[in-house]
Amino acid sequence: MNMESFFPKDIKAALQNNPPGEWIPSVPAHAIRLHSGYPAPHLVPSMELKEAVAQLLEEENDLPLHYIGSPRIDKLKEWVRSRQDVRGMPAKDEELLITAGACQAIDLIARIFLDKDAVVVVESPTYMEALEIFQNYTGRILTVPIDKDGLQTEKLAELLEERKQKGLTKPTFLYTIPTFHNPTGTTMTVERRMHVLKLAEEYDFLVLEDDAYGELGFNDNPKTLKSMDSKGRVLYVGSLSKVIAPGMRIGWVHTTETFIQALFWFKKDLEHPFAQATMATLLENTDFTSRLQSLSGAYQQKCQVMLEALEKYLPENASWFVPEGGYFVWVKLPGIDTEKLLSNATEAGVSFLPGKYFFLDQTEGAEYIRLSFSYEGEENIVKGIEKLGNVVHSNLK
Amino acid sequence: MNMESFFPKDIKAALQNNPPGEWIPSVPAHAIRLHSGYPAPHLVPSMELKEAVAQLLEEENDLPLHYIGSPRIDKLKEWVRSRQDVRGMPAKDEELLITAGACQAIDLIARIFLDKDAVVVVESPTYMEALEIFQNYTGRILTVPIDKDGLQTEKLAELLEERKQKGLTKPTFLYTIPTFHNPTGTTMTVERRMHVLKLAEEYDFLVLEDDAYGELGFNDNPKTLKSMDSKGRVLYVGSLSKVIAPGMRIGWVHTTETFIQALFWFKKDLEHPFAQATMATLLENTDFTSRLQSLSGAYQQKCQVMLEALEKYLPENASWFVPEGGYFVWVKLPGIDTEKLLSNATEAGVSFLPGKYFFLDQTEGAEYIRLSFSYEGEENIVKGIEKLGNVVHSNLK
Repeated sequence: MNMESFFPKDIKAALQNNPPGEWIPSVPAHAIRLHSGYPAPHLVPSMELKEAVAQLLEEENDLPLHYIGSPRIDKLKEWVRSRQDVRGMPAKDEELLITAGACQAIDLIARIFLDKDAVVVVESPTYMEALEIFQNYTGRILTVPIDKDGLQTEKLAELLEERKQKGLTKPTFLYTIPTFHNPTGTTMTVERRMHVLKLAEEYDFLVLEDDAYGELGFNDNPKTLKSMDSKGRVLYVGSLSKVIAPGMRIGWVHTTETFIQALFWFKKDLEHPFAQATMATLLENTDFTSRLQSLSGAYQQKCQVMLEALEKYLPENASWFVPEGGYFVWVKLPGIDTEKLLSNATEAGVSFLPGKYFFLDQTEGAEYIRLSFSYEGEENIVKGIEKLGNVVHSNLK
Repeated sequence: MNMESFFPKDIKAALQNNPPGEWIPSVPAHAIRLHSGYPAPHLVPSMELKEAVAQLLEEENDLPLHYIGSPRIDKLKEWVRSRQDVRGMPAKDEELLITAGACQAIDLIARIFLDKDAVVVVESPTYMEALEIFQNYTGRILTVPIDKDGLQTEKLAELLEERKQKGLTKPTFLYTIPTFHNPTGTTMTVERRMHVLKLAEEYDFLVLEDDAYGELGFNDNPKTLKSMDSKGRVLYVGSLSKVIAPGMRIGWVHTTETFIQALFWFKKDLEHPFAQATMATLLENTDFTSRLQSLSGAYQQKCQVMLEALEKYLPENASWFVPEGGYFVWVKLPGIDTEKLLSNATEAGVSFLPGKYFFLDQTEGAEYIRLSFSYEGEENIVKGIEKLGNVVHSNLK
């Protein structure tokens, strides 16, 4: 039997890409983990979740364990709706879809909008999982660079106008993480946000706004693109992964009813009643505003510690953006091949993610690394950056 | 903005099908629910799950709440592997993929094998969710009828030979529920199973074996197609929905390493660590064999009660297959339009699923209904069938 012969042409093409999760480094157990985009262990509400499950099952018995039935499924959606409302994005029930995390949301959006002829624009660098997802659908991915103020919308405008002049296919959507960007930690300015929305209207494309980190500002949280969008062009993706726990797999899409209906059409893992009802119970018992405040305080502190250690231990020519929220610091190490650096670093007991995985053209990422200050404690962050500094210095020699 | 203009051609075509879940009837709260393919409430291990979560989070803290990290994720896979082994389907780790229930497994399989030019064969009638899934990918679905011995493989052979003679596209796969079929409750004979595998080899197609009910035999459980397959042509889909709880969304695919790799490539809801680790903990504490025995005893008893009530309350000309396992009785009501019957029935306080949803050509299902004996208690089953008998008799007049 020729197994490959059963795959349609487009699937065969997708299987030629780099394998999913190729970027996950092999890290020894004792190493200091600066690669993971994980919340800090003590900020994950394990015991509260234990209590939520006990309460849920005592009150509802088998209900949340069937396909449908638990009233808390609706309550979770209601919570999301009211959260969107608080943040200036009022939504009707028909404009929301709960998903298994932001990744499923992005995949479903790709599924209804992309085929091999579709064109997508992404930021450069961008979230590697999203890149993997889009590459499963189309080879026609365009990139627009990021600077300290987020996506360079002037360059986006040039690209759009150039394609228009040449009669090339217009992009279906722009994928952006405007706030506390992964991997760069940058935040798009208000002027650029307005520019993005203006361009979307002018060149008739959609905007996929990934807001996974949007409520994790150290001081305040900028207004989302969705909240500034009067035309219905923004597909907003939210997530509880970074503010509650990724292992619960709760995310959502907020967009027009027409688009939500199409997403629902293709969402064939059905609902996740147990996870959704558990999350609803947890949220009932959570003062979310004060939770966000303590997360923000804790992550700001950890970020500060990392930035000071970077100043102290990295060579003069290293540089980084100073984040105002989120989980990450994006560091440029001129003259270093960061992929090679990784094996030295893990041997020395510290991990990071090489920049290459965040670029469509991976060579562009050779001198960059993504560091997460989210997971490790302050002491380990300092130790880890010290170790990193040592291996960088020996690689420079 | 013209929202539809953003959908690619194939997506537009899929959106022309009947909406997903259209078959879910609106049932008043007090009605006796004979439509749901739900396990009986007292057979869902709610309290055991509560304890499993408590144990898991006390032992592992935040581990099962990150993307990866809980050792129990591997243990769940190990449990599935050993279960496949016990049932004569030894699998390597690389030949298994855990999914969010059987539906996601079927959707992923459709995703890697089907495009608009692909041909699929399904049983007639078949599982409505699977039909919905396949219709999202291709309009080229062929049907082969079922009788009391399962899929009529002679008719499958004729169809295959005819297509070959005419030079038509061969099917990519046959979708079958050989054991305790949904909706008919029938089981394919060993001879027909062997015939299916022979045909798959001769006409070079794959077999998607949906075994969601396969361990719910009243007496014994027939050997799976996968266990008889020496050529690697069977993609086996298993599920814990019917034997533990659907709300946990745990299923799996067992097939060749090449196919598993491709499925993994497109599985973009990521893992569900909390649900998977919870299930692993529950299974550690469960004597699964004795659990299956009590399920089998309970469902056999409920089925018997339903069959006796059908004899007593339905008109002479009604007929049904006698199931040897599973959740369903498939009833033919000659001269009745069962879709119209449903509103009378729910008014009278009993629900069922009209046969039409299980057929590609829905008119073929007009005289059939699917009844579930799984969910309601014995007393309600009798009352429900009595009510059903009454509305059938008044519809005959």
